[in-house]
Amino acid sequence: MTSIEMIVAARSRLKGRVRRTPLLSSPFLDEVAGRRVFVKAECLQHTGSFKFRGGWSALSGLDPAMRRRGVIAFSSGNHAQGVALAATRHGVASVIIMPADAPKLKIDNTRAFGAEVVLYERGTEDRDALGARLSEERGLTLIRPYDEPLVIAGQGTSGLEIAEQAQEEGITAADVLVPCGGGGLSSGIALALEATAPDLTVRTCEPEGFDDTARSLRAGQIVRNTAMSGSICDAIVTPQPGKITFPILKRLAGTGFAVTDEEVLRAMALAFKRLKIIVEPGGAVALAAALFHGAAIDRDSVIAVASGGNVDTDLFTLALQRFG
Amino acid sequence: MTSIEMIVAARSRLKGRVRRTPLLSSPFLDEVAGRRVFVKAECLQHTGSFKFRGGWSALSGLDPAMRRRGVIAFSSGNHAQGVALAATRHGVASVIIMPADAPKLKIDNTRAFGAEVVLYERGTEDRDALGARLSEERGLTLIRPYDEPLVIAGQGTSGLEIAEQAQEEGITAADVLVPCGGGGLSSGIALALEATAPDLTVRTCEPEGFDDTARSLRAGQIVRNTAMSGSICDAIVTPQPGKITFPILKRLAGTGFAVTDEEVLRAMALAFKRLKIIVEPGGAVALAAALFHGAAIDRDSVIAVASGGNVDTDLFTLALQRFG
Repeated sequence: MTSIEMIVAARSRLKGRVRRTPLLSSPFLDEVAGRRVFVKAECLQHTGSFKFRGGWSALSGLDPAMRRRGVIAFSSGNHAQGVALAATRHGVASVIIMPADAPKLKIDNTRAFGAEVVLYERGTEDRDALGARLSEERGLTLIRPYDEPLVIAGQGTSGLEIAEQAQEEGITAADVLVPCGGGGLSSGIALALEATAPDLTVRTCEPEGFDDTARSLRAGQIVRNTAMSGSICDAIVTPQPGKITFPILKRLAGTGFAVTDEEVLRAMALAFKRLKIIVEPGGAVALAAALFHGAAIDRDSVIAVASGGNVDTDLFTLALQRFG
Repeated sequence: MTSIEMIVAARSRLKGRVRRTPLLSSPFLDEVAGRRVFVKAECLQHTGSFKFRGGWSALSGLDPAMRRRGVIAFSSGNHAQGVALAATRHGVASVIIMPADAPKLKIDNTRAFGAEVVLYERGTEDRDALGARLSEERGLTLIRPYDEPLVIAGQGTSGLEIAEQAQEEGITAADVLVPCGGGGLSSGIALALEATAPDLTVRTCEPEGFDDTARSLRAGQIVRNTAMSGSICDAIVTPQPGKITFPILKRLAGTGFAVTDEEVLRAMALAFKRLKIIVEPGGAVALAAALFHGAAIDRDSVIAVASGGNVDTDLFTLALQRFG
């Protein structure tokens, strides 16, 4: 079970290794939203997403003897890059199992961060069996993307920063909107804020049609998505909330948001124009909710986490051409 | 004459009003450059460029009775926005004289930041006479874009941050590459580093064909540009180095760089892909020099200032399409 003590301990381990990302704002965004909007720019984190926090926390928190044998992860995206760079900077091996049809850029980046990438064919190969065999043969430790206390603790360090930065800005109460896939980031931030800034309330943000967490929060129990593809926000589409993360969100989070692809593209274009940052679709759902779902927000201030910036040129160009 | 004491005093006045922008990096950029590359992301400053520092420094440093009567500036771009927002946040009026053919977005933004924009026709109207008449009628104080000690002191606060951030990163010696128009930013940073980190050396960066500062530094005296248009880096094209700024650069700066438009577009695309920030052409000349002019750099580490991010969608899209 992740606790505030684990988050504070993770912060010590992350110090000097992980960036304290800025809290950005623009009067133009305030005007669109009708309230003060602050953006926690985790897209500026090493590897281009918050996942490096969880990766570093997991690697640095492992028993040294286990760490020396190396780590393994399943991921087609940001978790892959976060674990790969964290492992390389710890001087240990990482194996990342990726689908053979993952974007070439993400495969190349994961390799460039020092990982051994093992590709598998979706449909014909059993990913879990492949991972289990490699783990056993080489004694690798599996780093789960969200249902892992050390990973949640790492993501929660961004919540400690949000609490500090809110105080610096004079924000006493706010909704904190967080992009949500498996819930590692949102549950980590929720735990950090519970302990350090209880008037900052986490609310999850997801793509419309893939809002398993929002629906689970309404139902009071875990509900699955019916589809796994068809969203431009692929990085945050997961089958269902995590077993460890959901109880934390159920206890601490407000109602969730679901935003459309068009709102996401508009948010990306506004982040370009007004904040000068690149946000990927899955990373822009919270900003989209802050800007375009204001009727569901009561507080005068909203903090939106821009969780990643790893977007292909074509999709980013599309956002600018349609809404720039 | 601007001194380190003026820069330190400006830092006190700017505290809590101006963003401490992050120092970013990526192993991928290190690989392109063949050395460690750090990017001071001033594009993330309020109004999208470092100019807000100088604007705030000038407004906050004015005699209160003068300040109450308002300020005036000539600018078609970033200085306009910096002065406008700084004046509005001080609760005083600002008049910005802009050419009638300036990009509509920049005119709109300057108005949205609270300025009264007065347009003039290049060629038929005398901008300086117009400004002098308005100043006299209303008792406005002129805020010059670079040949103004309070403005140089404001820009120099980014140099104090660079010195601190370099120490945090363990950088003891480095070339600090700075986009250079009139020289306000580069001379301010040079003064700040002279006092706080003397092994960090400022070097100016300009577009090829508009490298008046590099040529002036070589000649040991002020040399003019022969053309004033034809560069994509319009924000940093000035007729000649400033009368106040040039002697500072002559005393403290190393040799200057001149980069091509293609190198600038490549640097913008790499900043998109690897740092997740938007950099405008004039703001990308230092990163371009760091990445593509390594043969003229001796040190193991280079710090490039990305001075602004106010670029139109079309030009940014072009950079991505050609080099993304």
